[in-house]
Amino acid sequence: MRQHIGEQTIKFKNPPVIKAAASVVGEKEGEGPLGKYFDRILSAEHSSNKTWEEAEADIARQGVELAVAKANLSIDDVQYIFAGDLLNQGIGSTYGLRGFDRPYFGLFAACSTIGEAMTIGSVFLDGEFADNVVVAASSHFCSAEKTFRFPLGLGNQRTPTSSWTVTGDGALVIGSAGEGPRITAATTGKIVDMGIKDMTNMGAAMAPAAADILIQHFSDLNIKPDEYDVIATGDLGVFGHELLVELMKKKGFDISKICTDCGIEIYDKESQDTHAGGSGPACSAVTFASYFFPKLLRGEIKKMLLVPTGALMNSTVSQQGETIPAIAHAVRIESGV
Amino acid sequence: MRQHIGEQTIKFKNPPVIKAAASVVGEKEGEGPLGKYFDRILSAEHSSNKTWEEAEADIARQGVELAVAKANLSIDDVQYIFAGDLLNQGIGSTYGLRGFDRPYFGLFAACSTIGEAMTIGSVFLDGEFADNVVVAASSHFCSAEKTFRFPLGLGNQRTPTSSWTVTGDGALVIGSAGEGPRITAATTGKIVDMGIKDMTNMGAAMAPAAADILIQHFSDLNIKPDEYDVIATGDLGVFGHELLVELMKKKGFDISKICTDCGIEIYDKESQDTHAGGSGPACSAVTFASYFFPKLLRGEIKKMLLVPTGALMNSTVSQQGETIPAIAHAVRIESGV
Repeated sequence: MRQHIGEQTIKFKNPPVIKAAASVVGEKEGEGPLGKYFDRILSAEHSSNKTWEEAEADIARQGVELAVAKANLSIDDVQYIFAGDLLNQGIGSTYGLRGFDRPYFGLFAACSTIGEAMTIGSVFLDGEFADNVVVAASSHFCSAEKTFRFPLGLGNQRTPTSSWTVTGDGALVIGSAGEGPRITAATTGKIVDMGIKDMTNMGAAMAPAAADILIQHFSDLNIKPDEYDVIATGDLGVFGHELLVELMKKKGFDISKICTDCGIEIYDKESQDTHAGGSGPACSAVTFASYFFPKLLRGEIKKMLLVPTGALMNSTVSQQGETIPAIAHAVRIESGV
Repeated sequence: MRQHIGEQTIKFKNPPVIKAAASVVGEKEGEGPLGKYFDRILSAEHSSNKTWEEAEADIARQGVELAVAKANLSIDDVQYIFAGDLLNQGIGSTYGLRGFDRPYFGLFAACSTIGEAMTIGSVFLDGEFADNVVVAASSHFCSAEKTFRFPLGLGNQRTPTSSWTVTGDGALVIGSAGEGPRITAATTGKIVDMGIKDMTNMGAAMAPAAADILIQHFSDLNIKPDEYDVIATGDLGVFGHELLVELMKKKGFDISKICTDCGIEIYDKESQDTHAGGSGPACSAVTFASYFFPKLLRGEIKKMLLVPTGALMNSTVSQQGETIPAIAHAVRIESGV
C-alpha cells in the first residue's frame, strides 16, 4: 500500500494529467452565470430527442466526444471509460456511450460520480493499467424530476431547500503523461447517514459527508484548509453549504473564505428560480470542466480540492420512510503552472 | 501501460489473492443443486425485513460481513469496498453496506457487477493502492421483479426464455499478498447492442457480449479455450448459453465441453420452474463464491475464466421501445495448487 497516506487518502506517485475537459449543458445552464464558459449549450432541454432519457444519453455522448476531440485524441486512444448518472440502472451513460466501442465501467455515486470516476481513473493511470481514460458524469433536469420527484406536468411547487438538477455532461480525458493540471491525491468517502429523510433538502443530507471527507483529507495529509486556493463541493446548495461551513467551524476549521459549491456557482438563485442551487452528477462535472479547469490551466488557481457530493437514496426507499445516506469524494488538482 | 496485453486485457504483475469468498442466499437457491455449497441460506425470501428492499440490503450486509470473517480479518483491515446491485440507484448495496464505515465505490454493471468489481479491485491491489478490498454483488428476486417486470401479486405467467433473479449476495475479500487462488488477468468488456428488445429474453441480448469478450480474451492472450478447465458465464441461461456456443463455433472456437453458465448451475430447471435459469448480479457472484472458488482452493480446477454478463437496460427505456445493450467482463482465476 505504498501509495496510501493516512487512513483514506491516495497520494499519486506519477500524478495523472487532465489533458482536456469538456461540458455540454442545457439552455438554463447556458443562461446562468457560468454560461459563457461552457463548451456547448443545447437549444432546449429536449434538444431534438424524442424522450428525456434519449436527450440525456445524447448529451452524455456529446460530452465524451467533445472531451476526446479537445485532447486531440481519437476514442481508440482511450483504454477505459468510467461514467455514471442519476437514472435507474445508469441508462444515461450506457445508452449514450454504447456507440464508442470502448471498455466500459459503469459507476453509481449519484451526484458525486465525477469524484469516484476521477479517483478510479487515476488509479488505473498511476498504476500503469492505462495511458488514457475518459471519466464522465451526466444528468438531466426532466429525467431526474421524473425519476425522483413529481411528474413535471403537475407543476408542483418546490420547497426553498430543493435544488435544480443540472442538465449536462462533464467529461475529462486523463492521461498518464503530458502537460496540464494533475490529480495529485484522492480521499475516498465512506457512506454517512445522519438520519435526514427530506428528499427536498439533500444539502442537509450531504453536508455531513462533505465535512467528514474534508476533515479526513486534512488529517491524512496533515494540512490545513489554507493549503488550497479553492475548495469546491459538488451540489450542497446554499443551505447545505452554510451547514458545512458551520460543521467545519465546530471542528476547528475555517473554510468560509475558500470554500464554494458548484451548485451555488452554476445558477443565479434570484433570477433563475433555482431555490437552493444546482444538483445532479453534471453539476460538479460541468462546473469543474469549464469553470475551474481553465483557471487551473492558466495558473489562476494553483491548487484546488474538488469534493463532489452524492445522496444515495432512491424514491422507493424514501417513500418507505428510509433516511438518506450520503457520500463525498475529495480529489486534489494542482495547476503545475 | 506496462500491465496491458493486447487490446483489452490486463495481466496482473503481482496477481491479487482471493482470501475468502462468502455467499448468502434465499430459500429457493438453498433448495437448488448448489444448496449444500452456500454459506448461509435465509429462511424465506423476505427474511425478517419489512420490505424487499430492506431484505436485499440486509443480505448484502451479511455477505460482506461473512466474507471478512472467513478471511479472518476485521472490516477495518479493508481499505475499499466495491459493490453494486440491480436496484434503482444501487440502494441494495448502499443501504446494506452503509454501516461498515469504510471507503465505498458504488458500481453499476447489472448482472456483470462482480466481474467489474473483481477487475477494479484487482487494479487497486496490484497497483499497491490497497492491501485488502471487498468486492460484492447482490440481488433479490422480489425487488427485481418489482423493478423490472410485473407486480408479483398479479401472478403473471412467465415466458420460457425468462430467467429467475437470484436472491443472494456473493462477496470476496481480495488481498495483495497471501496464499490462495489468484486473479491473474482481466479482459474488460465493451457495450454490445445487437438490437434485441425482448426483456424476457436477456440471454439473447447478453450472448453476443459474452462471445465478444471471449474472442477478445483469447486473442489478447494468444490462447485457445482449452487453456481453461472451466469457462463460466454469468447468467445467460439455457437459451443464451446455446446461442453463445453457436456464436463461438462460427468464429472457430469450440467451447461446448468446458463452458457452463452460473444461471444453469444454480437451479434445477425442471423441478424449480425457473425456465431459462438464474440471473441477477448475485447469480455469478454466489456461484463463483461457493461452487467454483472451493474447487480452485482444492486444486480441482486449476484455471478458470469467470465471465459475468449484464443487460444494461431499465424498464423506462424498454417501454420506450429501446434495445438492450449488454456487457461482459472476463476474469481469469488460477488455483496455484
